[in-house]
Parts: sequence; C-alpha cells; structure tokens
Amino acid sequence: MAKVKGLRCRECGKEYPAEPIHVCEFCFGPLEVVYDYEEIKKNISREKIERGPKSLWRYIDILPVEEPKVGLTAGYTPLKKAENLGKVLGLKNLYIKDDSVNHPTLSFKDRVVSVALSKAVEFGFDTAACASTGNLANSVAAHCAQAGLNCFVFIPANLESQKIYGSLVFSPTVVAVEGTYDDVNRLCSEIANELYWAFVNINIRPYYAEGSKTLAFEVVEQLGWRAPDAVVAPAASGSLITKIWKGLKELKLVGLIDEMNTRVYGAQAEGCSPIAQAWREGRDYIKPVKPNTIAKSIAIGNPADGIYALQVTKESRGDWETATDEEIIEGIKLLAETEGIFTETAGGTTIAVLKKLAERGAFKEDEVVVAYITGNGYKTLEVLEGHVKETIRIKPTLSDFKEKILVRV
Amino acid sequence: MAKVKGLRCRECGKEYPAEPIHVCEFCFGPLEVVYDYEEIKKNISREKIERGPKSLWRYIDILPVEEPKVGLTAGYTPLKKAENLGKVLGLKNLYIKDDSVNHPTLSFKDRVVSVALSKAVEFGFDTAACASTGNLANSVAAHCAQAGLNCFVFIPANLESQKIYGSLVFSPTVVAVEGTYDDVNRLCSEIANELYWAFVNINIRPYYAEGSKTLAFEVVEQLGWRAPDAVVAPAASGSLITKIWKGLKELKLVGLIDEMNTRVYGAQAEGCSPIAQAWREGRDYIKPVKPNTIAKSIAIGNPADGIYALQVTKESRGDWETATDEEIIEGIKLLAETEGIFTETAGGTTIAVLKKLAERGAFKEDEVVVAYITGNGYKTLEVLEGHVKETIRIKPTLSDFKEKILVRV
Repeated sequence: MAKVKGLRCRECGKEYPAEPIHVCEFCFGPLEVVYDYEEIKKNISREKIERGPKSLWRYIDILPVEEPKVGLTAGYTPLKKAENLGKVLGLKNLYIKDDSVNHPTLSFKDRVVSVALSKAVEFGFDTAACASTGNLANSVAAHCAQAGLNCFVFIPANLESQKIYGSLVFSPTVVAVEGTYDDVNRLCSEIANELYWAFVNINIRPYYAEGSKTLAFEVVEQLGWRAPDAVVAPAASGSLITKIWKGLKELKLVGLIDEMNTRVYGAQAEGCSPIAQAWREGRDYIKPVKPNTIAKSIAIGNPADGIYALQVTKESRGDWETATDEEIIEGIKLLAETEGIFTETAGGTTIAVLKKLAERGAFKEDEVVVAYITGNGYKTLEVLEGHVKETIRIKPTLSDFKEKILVRV
Repeated sequence: MAKVKGLRCRECGKEYPAEPIHVCEFCFGPLEVVYDYEEIKKNISREKIERGPKSLWRYIDILPVEEPKVGLTAGYTPLKKAENLGKVLGLKNLYIKDDSVNHPTLSFKDRVVSVALSKAVEFGFDTAACASTGNLANSVAAHCAQAGLNCFVFIPANLESQKIYGSLVFSPTVVAVEGTYDDVNRLCSEIANELYWAFVNINIRPYYAEGSKTLAFEVVEQLGWRAPDAVVAPAASGSLITKIWKGLKELKLVGLIDEMNTRVYGAQAEGCSPIAQAWREGRDYIKPVKPNTIAKSIAIGNPADGIYALQVTKESRGDWETATDEEIIEGIKLLAETEGIFTETAGGTTIAVLKKLAERGAFKEDEVVVAYITGNGYKTLEVLEGHVKETIRIKPTLSDFKEKILVRV
C-alpha cells in the first residue's frame, strides 16, 4: 500500500511493517499507523471525496485499508445544526455530530470496527474478538456476522442488559467477565498473546483506532470544508480524542483545508475520570481509578491512550470537564428535549460537559462548536427510570380523556 | 404551491383545497394529495436530486410541503446489498432498505412525521399528537421537541416498555390507553373532532402518508435509477405499501425512470393479518380482527388503508404472506446473523415473509428484490428473551477462559 508506510512506536519511534501487532518490542509503547502524506496528497481531493460512497469509505485514501471488506454502510452520519440547544447555551453555531444513528449498531464503534475487521480479513484472520463496555461488542458481533468471522466478545458481567441482547442477536459467543472493563481488557491481552485471534482493540488496535479519524473528516466536509473552532468529545480509553485530532491535522497536511485551529475538549464521567483528574492536577501521567458511574460505556479506569489525550488538549489549547451521574441524565434529557436526539450515557456526559464549558465561557458566542454524540439512548434505557415524566393511563373514552388529560393542559 | 393541486377523495373523486382535513364530506372516503405532475416534470431531474440534501428532503419537489421545518436529517438511509441472506434464499440481487437506522428515532416513521409536522407548522398548529403502536410516538415526540410544539402521544397501555421510554425522554404527554391500537385510534379520531390539534395520522394523514413515498424514491435512486423487480414491505394500516406504489408510479410519471414493473408483496403477522386474510379469501373488503401477535408495531386490526393495499398487490401482480410469532423471531435472527442488521418484530415479519415467498418461487434468481426493514431491534428487545444464546460467565483469569470457553470452540 503506497499510502501506508508502516507502524511506528509513539514512544521511541521504532518502525515496524504493517502487521497485526500493537506494542513496541523495545519500549512497550503503542504502535501507530504512519502514512506517506505526499503520496496521499497526489491522490486526494475534495471533489473525489464528494463523489465517493455515502459512508466512511469516502475517506479510504487516508485509512489503513486496501479495500473495504465489511461495514460498507458505516459512517457519514448527520451533522445537525443545534439551534434550540444553542439558544439554551448561548452558542450561535453549535452542531451535533450524531453517531447515535450510525450504521448498523448505533454508535461510533461502527467506524473503528469497519476499519479493524476489513483489516483483519486482509490479514487472513478467521476469528475476531474484543474487550468491550458494550457498544464495541454490538458492533464487532454485527460485523463478524456480515463477514462470516467467528466471534467472541468479552464484557464486564454487570453491563446493561439492553447492550447484551444487542450483541447476542448476532450469535457471537458473549463472555461475561466478573470484573471491571479493565479486568476484561487485561484478560483479553493475555488471550491475544496465546491465540491467533483478531482482537480489534488489542492486536488490531493501530488500524482500529484510525477509524475514529473519520469523525473529524466528516465534520469538516459537512461544515463546507472548514475545521470547527472547538469540539467536545467523550473520553474512555482516550483514543477517540487522539484520533479526532490526528484527523484534523491530516486534512491540513494533505491540503484539504488551509487552516486548523480547533480546540479539543474532553468529557469524562466524574465517577471515572482518570484523564480529567490528571489534567486538573497538572500531571502528564494517569493514575488508574476504579469506575463508579452510570456511564458504563466510558468507564475505563486505566485508559490506554490517556496520556495522548492529555497531550491533545494541551497542544490544541482545549480543556477537560466532568459530569456527575445526575448531570449525565440531565444531559440526555436536555439533548432530547431541545434537539429530538436520544443519546446514551456517554452522550449525556458530553452534553453535560458542553453545558458546563459554555457556562464558564470556554466558547465565544459565534464560534463553530461541535459536540460528538457517540451512541444511542436505546442502549441505556434503564438510567431513565424515575427521571422522566410518567405515562397517564386512561380508558378509551372521550370523557376519561377530558377528565384525566385535558384538565392538565 | 404550484406542485400541489389540492386533496381528492379516493372514493368519489371530490376535490378539496390542501387543508388539514382527511375525510370526504360526502362519502367519508379518505382524502389524498393530488399533484400537478406536468409542473413537477419541468422542475425535477436526477441531477437536481443528486445535488440535494442527504435526507428525504432531496425529493421535496414531489412532497406536499413548501419548506422543511422539522426532521431535516430524516431519511436517505442505506440500501445494503444482502449477499449473505441472498445466498440463503437463492437470490442474487437481494437488497435491504435499512430504516432501522433512520434519523432520529430508528424507524421509517421519521419520514412521515418529518413531512406531517413540517406541514402542521405550515398550517399554524401549536400542538401535535398521534395514535401510535410505539414507533410513531417516538418520532412525533422527537420532532415536536425539535419544532417546539406541544405534544400528546396516545399508545396502547400494553406496549413494550422500551418504546415507552423512547417517547418519554422527549417529554411529551404519553397517554396509555387501556385497549388495542384500534381503540386508541378511535379515541384519537374523536379528540381530533373536538380540538385543534395536528394528529399526524388522523387530520394530517393525507400529508403524513406522502412521506412514505420517499422509501420508493430512495431505493430507485440507490439502485442507479432503476425500479426493483419486487419489493416486500410490512403492512399495518396498509398505508406504507400504498405509498411505495404511488412513489414508484410517480417516478415514471415525471420522467425520472422509463420503466416500472415492480411487484409489491405485503407482509403481516399471522396474529394480525386482516389484509392478507382478505387477499387469501379473494375479498375486496377487510374484516377487522383482534390482534394477537408479538409484532405490536404492525398490530392494527382495522387497517385504514387495507383495501388500497389490496389493490396495489393486485395491480402490481404481487402477493401477501404471513408469519407466526416464532417465524418472526427467526426472521429477526436470520437478518442479524447474515447481514449484521438488528431489526424489530415488524422487520422480522418482513424477513420471514421474504423467506417464505422465496421458497415458494415468487422471485426469479436474478431479479432485483428489495426488503423494507422499517424499525430497530433495540425497540423490541424483550421478544429475544429465551431465543438467543446465553452469555457465559467467567472469572477474569486465563485458566477460567480456557476451562469454560476454549474447550467449546
């Protein structure tokens, strides 16, 4: 592949061929895909992208895959101008990038999995797997079904039941591990050392993570080839924020935009905020925490890319903020009531943090601000219990309607 | 509006101005929007549509709305070539039109509601409402939040809890009526006579129903401006099938396609199949039934457009077929396991019926067949209980993994 030079260690810079490996043999740093941007620049143009498929594969020239094999409809989700929410927050150019309707499994994970499993098929794997807080498991199971791969998904045993059924329907083997996500992840790393399985977020991680760049690419294209002034995104492992930033920089590098001064803001749940805590305390390292939050999809206590996410906010002059469980539920409701978009707890965290940032003056009124909504509210319905209005029960008669409903209007 | 001539009674042909009315004063027949196709033909072209927004509003020239006011991201969902499912069914050109990821509320109802509420805003209503089996309620609640309209949704009290929360999050008044959908619908008709509310599927119904035509328009465009040989769609009120057919005919009328020989097949749940029963018995009228099926979203015992749906299958040389509850669940699983798409009971009905039709030779191997998937599986999760594999619980150790999982592989 002319566009991909290989892998490189983020820590010591040692280079490797583009194989299913993820850790530097010398310093144990994480490996990252390195591109030949001069070569890419020759092949890419706004017009070519606009003529491309209505999916994330319109950006294949800056993705580490030769040919899409799976996830052909993933990505290219709506960017919605949020007039109503903008009014509440005093922002005139607020946008929601809405991956709650991503294809096929309703979260941004369909992006990373499409790329990871296309690569896994290229590598010749016949079995795929993941360590997941739920959304990733849904997506891996769905895409393995498409691709005809054997599938094993590993989740914390205490996950929301909705998300478990959202995996089981695709008939993978679902392994419920008694422990936190971090326990699940550790176990999967051990398994990946022993078996030739494509763990999308372990040994395939360098390729997998690149899929998140499309969240930057699409927003810039949808804004009319303009980088936003600020973006707010949730952080679990920290990979998403790191890759949004990489994507924005790449668009400038290959000449698709001339300017990029985007500030990147990170959102974490107060009950699992190791990256935000490091930022507050001025640390450049992460102290692992034990998660205690309803936002299970972002409850990673020992985030693999936490330090790189910190670097992004520093380099971009962004910031971090956290939300309590109560604020997360309020965030879900605020987005629903103003914009008609139903997100899960991770999206509630993003909206709660966006609100706090707006209230403390992080954005100028006219700035173009994009909030990333990464998953669908149907996946975490149970958190709404006791927090929404109740239904009103009536008999099917006009008189009962008048007596029980009309009097309240 | 030059493109819209007005409304016309489907039964006696009497004409009316384009107002919020739905029943003929003389014969009580339903009213339908009538267009000036010569005028539309002058303004429309494939190129203009392709340059339009990536939503159903790219077809505004054949919709009864002046300007979109709400639902700006609805529609334009993926059309997926179903290679795996096609192999199972012996079909080389099978496609899934996937409204399980429609924006924002994950069903085809986002199409009809976008059109209905844009029209309601045009008419000056400040309150919108609907009688719903769940999906419509979700969509009306979401779009009312966007548009700042007061919202009342009426549902049968025994609805899936998932779908109720999927409405409540947007803060409408949810009225749970003790009775079937048909009872709910009757009550809402009475209320619509007394109050100046925009009931999207009652007094706004002529405009609302037009939104379903976009399911025909998009499929034809996504197939490269070619009408499919056959389509399979679920039937509740019968409106969807009627409007898919109207949309296909319109594309030919306005010159966007030269040929249209599509056969339309209707799918109903065995436990609520008044239209399919009429077809089997050669009747041109509907005998209402009392629904008894897990496919609650299509459980309409007295379908308003049933006789028109029958006419469509007759005119198009299509057919009807039904699926039992067990077959519906198998249909959900078959689509998930082959194509990685998770649909609800209505989609399970469609797939089960598609399978039966294929098995009895309704399609030639090479024909282009499109199955309409109208809603998302997250909305009816509870039907999967006891019908999918179980999770396997392990301790977070390699030895437990080997003992409990690896031995099974």
